[in-house]
Amino acid sequence: MGQIICAGLGPGDPDLISVRADRAIRGARHVAFFRKPGRQGQARRIVTGMLAPDAHEYPMEYPVTTEIPFDSPAYNDLLAAFYDDWAARLRDLAATDDVVVLCEGDPFFYGSFMHLYVRLRDVVDMQVIPGIPGMAGCWNASGTPITWGDDVLTVLMGTLPEPDLRRHIAGTDALVVMKTGRNLPKVRRALAATGRLEDAWLIERGTMPGQRIARLAEVADADCPYFAIVMVHGRGRRPMVLPQVAE
Amino acid sequence: MGQIICAGLGPGDPDLISVRADRAIRGARHVAFFRKPGRQGQARRIVTGMLAPDAHEYPMEYPVTTEIPFDSPAYNDLLAAFYDDWAARLRDLAATDDVVVLCEGDPFFYGSFMHLYVRLRDVVDMQVIPGIPGMAGCWNASGTPITWGDDVLTVLMGTLPEPDLRRHIAGTDALVVMKTGRNLPKVRRALAATGRLEDAWLIERGTMPGQRIARLAEVADADCPYFAIVMVHGRGRRPMVLPQVAE
Repeated sequence: MGQIICAGLGPGDPDLISVRADRAIRGARHVAFFRKPGRQGQARRIVTGMLAPDAHEYPMEYPVTTEIPFDSPAYNDLLAAFYDDWAARLRDLAATDDVVVLCEGDPFFYGSFMHLYVRLRDVVDMQVIPGIPGMAGCWNASGTPITWGDDVLTVLMGTLPEPDLRRHIAGTDALVVMKTGRNLPKVRRALAATGRLEDAWLIERGTMPGQRIARLAEVADADCPYFAIVMVHGRGRRPMVLPQVAE
Repeated sequence: MGQIICAGLGPGDPDLISVRADRAIRGARHVAFFRKPGRQGQARRIVTGMLAPDAHEYPMEYPVTTEIPFDSPAYNDLLAAFYDDWAARLRDLAATDDVVVLCEGDPFFYGSFMHLYVRLRDVVDMQVIPGIPGMAGCWNASGTPITWGDDVLTVLMGTLPEPDLRRHIAGTDALVVMKTGRNLPKVRRALAATGRLEDAWLIERGTMPGQRIARLAEVADADCPYFAIVMVHGRGRRPMVLPQVAE
């Protein structure tokens, strides 16, 4: 009986994969990874040169990405059938051998792997190896700490309604916005409305070749891929006095 | 001319250090790390058995931790002199050789290293190797994704005033609270007031020996070390329909 091992790949530089995940990937006989049809896929690209020559590869190609609205029943049905199908195939593989599933960033932080995980955790022995989240690669690339002292950090999706973005941004010290892309005009307005636009950075491919760091105020609305991250660094909120007795 | 290399150690399991940081640590001739006086120190403990036999070690012992209130001028002065002193010593070492500074978690995410970094980045060649944040080790240990879909994640310090804790907790999907310890009663009240106490977990030493995962509702107020993390997992906020044209 094999194990399904999800290996967190970290932000993109293969040298930033953990020692444990590196070992699992190099020793794997079966390697599965998500990708869009017709693409190599970012996860597979990260492990270039790392797989054993005789490793079997299983590209799990999303049946749909942005062609259908996210909240339509058709989208939901297609994705559910896709995850059901791959869960069954990986389960069958794991009956006799270990299977490594590649996962960008950290698998438990907005990772697609969790759709397989919730389907399989009760029927297959699973191991999830954490990774450095993509956002940590981005703030590392920025050369500035994202948080210090008692800063509050808020991680938002650019898909949120604009009033929600504004409210969260107004209340936080440090900020990470993911799923930007075509949501960038909305994110930018929310930052401007809360006085944070001048402190915001757009970071793309942090720690990878072609890494790009730009002031958001200087980036055109159309010039933002879906996986770029918008970031505002905290400034080090001063800690409160700790009460010496129970409150 | 050497380099100062800050190696992010990740959440505690040495097998979760990145390949790059692992290589830097094993090859280091000079290794510095923070610790409380009289302790081995968590960072040094993580690299047990990894340092070269002839490596020089530089324990940087905090002059003060909780004996003086955080916001007193005396505290500030003592810490500033401490960081000034070590910045000068590491700079001198780096004049002729590389120096590796060990840093738990990710150095740019609430790391003490930044106090050296801001003092040295303009005068010494520096490299910061990211690590898996401690909180990612904790949600990995919990066996449940911290966020999926369009969840909002908020990272808070338990030192914040109770009304601020309540307001942030009420507005978020997923939650991480650091610096808990004696702030636990306050954190617990804020969670109870916002209806989240039943979903909250206390996680201690995630990925390390002696790892502990408990329902916060079942933990006694006094039974919480400073570095334990309180966590509420997101439930997968549904994405909004993406607008197909500019709003």
